Amino acid sequence: MTFVKGKVKTVYETDNPEEIIIQYEDKVTAGNGRKELWREGKGSICCEISRILFKIIEEEGIRTHYITMPTDSSMCCRRVDIIPIEVVVRNITAGSIVRQTTLEEGRIINWPLVEYYLKDDEKDDPLLTEDRINLMGHGDVLKDLESIAREVNSLLKTIFRDIGLTLVDFKLEFGYDSGQNLLLADELSPDGMRLWKKGTKERFDKDLFRKDEGDIVEAYKYILQHLRQFA
Amino acid sequence: MTFVKGKVKTVYETDNPEEIIIQYEDKVTAGNGRKELWREGKGSICCEISRILFKIIEEEGIRTHYITMPTDSSMCCRRVDIIPIEVVVRNITAGSIVRQTTLEEGRIINWPLVEYYLKDDEKDDPLLTEDRINLMGHGDVLKDLESIAREVNSLLKTIFRDIGLTLVDFKLEFGYDSGQNLLLADELSPDGMRLWKKGTKERFDKDLFRKDEGDIVEAYKYILQHLRQFA
Repeated sequence: MTFVKGKVKTVYETDNPEEIIIQYEDKVTAGNGRKELWREGKGSICCEISRILFKIIEEEGIRTHYITMPTDSSMCCRRVDIIPIEVVVRNITAGSIVRQTTLEEGRIINWPLVEYYLKDDEKDDPLLTEDRINLMGHGDVLKDLESIAREVNSLLKTIFRDIGLTLVDFKLEFGYDSGQNLLLADELSPDGMRLWKKGTKERFDKDLFRKDEGDIVEAYKYILQHLRQFA
Repeated sequence: MTFVKGKVKTVYETDNPEEIIIQYEDKVTAGNGRKELWREGKGSICCEISRILFKIIEEEGIRTHYITMPTDSSMCCRRVDIIPIEVVVRNITAGSIVRQTTLEEGRIINWPLVEYYLKDDEKDDPLLTEDRINLMGHGDVLKDLESIAREVNSLLKTIFRDIGLTLVDFKLEFGYDSGQNLLLADELSPDGMRLWKKGTKERFDKDLFRKDEGDIVEAYKYILQHLRQFA
């Protein structure tokens, strides 16, 4: 079985050319892999959180690549050609938007910001403008990416609010299956989100690891336990 | 006289609070000052090129900060509050747009690209999207910046074409004078442009220094000699 090794996930081919297996590893990375750590149980927690969130999103009519979970740390998914654009939705300023502008951390963005980044680790995932995306030949899909991202944001914001967390921002990836259907792909876990305890900036996401402020597995477990009511 | 020391220019106050003196130093820098060199004559060449280009632009009805040249390497200019947004116009892909996208160098952009960067050396002048500029509170001025930048591009493209050079891209800075007039500011020299010999990629700009491909003073002298017909 050939495979693609990502930073925290490994993708395996299956006998079915339309399906892949994504193995969630017990690994945490930050700074585009410059910092990393093994933490037992982390893979299965992220896998299960992703499953729950993909399921909720599917129920609202948004198509995702998720099919099933053959083990507690792997997902069987529809094979897609990934669009090399990462979509980030921001409800509150934090992270790179603070480093790259004059904005302070923690500012509420009333009309959530949908931003695009080139999916290219070697280039450190640079920010893209719509003009650059048009020149790159991906302009046609932008409106769809934006509208799906806004719908996903509305859903996730509500769910996390119900479990006492504020969804600050998150990243989505998309791809096309063999039938040219646009599917939400990759994972949906606190590895690709910022979540703050409601009314505070207490982190329940990968920033705990980025900033050495606490144990991400404990935080992720809290999230999973509270998300189970939606499963 | 208090002053502000930039990377290749020093700004001095004058007895007139509405005016400043900009001294062009005999210095070349690249990579946000990480690489630098002293080259005799470079300051006065850039100063004189700037004067000629500001004059041509003024004659077309675009207001600039330029008043006069008290010495051959200094400019007396209207004092402005600089808008912390650098405006870049691109006619052909080169430089950071190539490093930060999937675009190859040398692609002609039919509808020239107007891009915005935060003027902040400590942050390495990051790319801005229009949404980020709106959040930062500078959205109102964007349309003016874009339309002036496009006009300046049309003018400069024609002038450089007449002297055998292709204007690949260039940077502009703007500010408001005490009467709240929007003025084109900073300098207009090959330090802030990419210029290629027509039909080739032979450089007549700071990339010669960035890439150690030749002597910028010789190239800048060529430009100045040929621009004198417009002075």
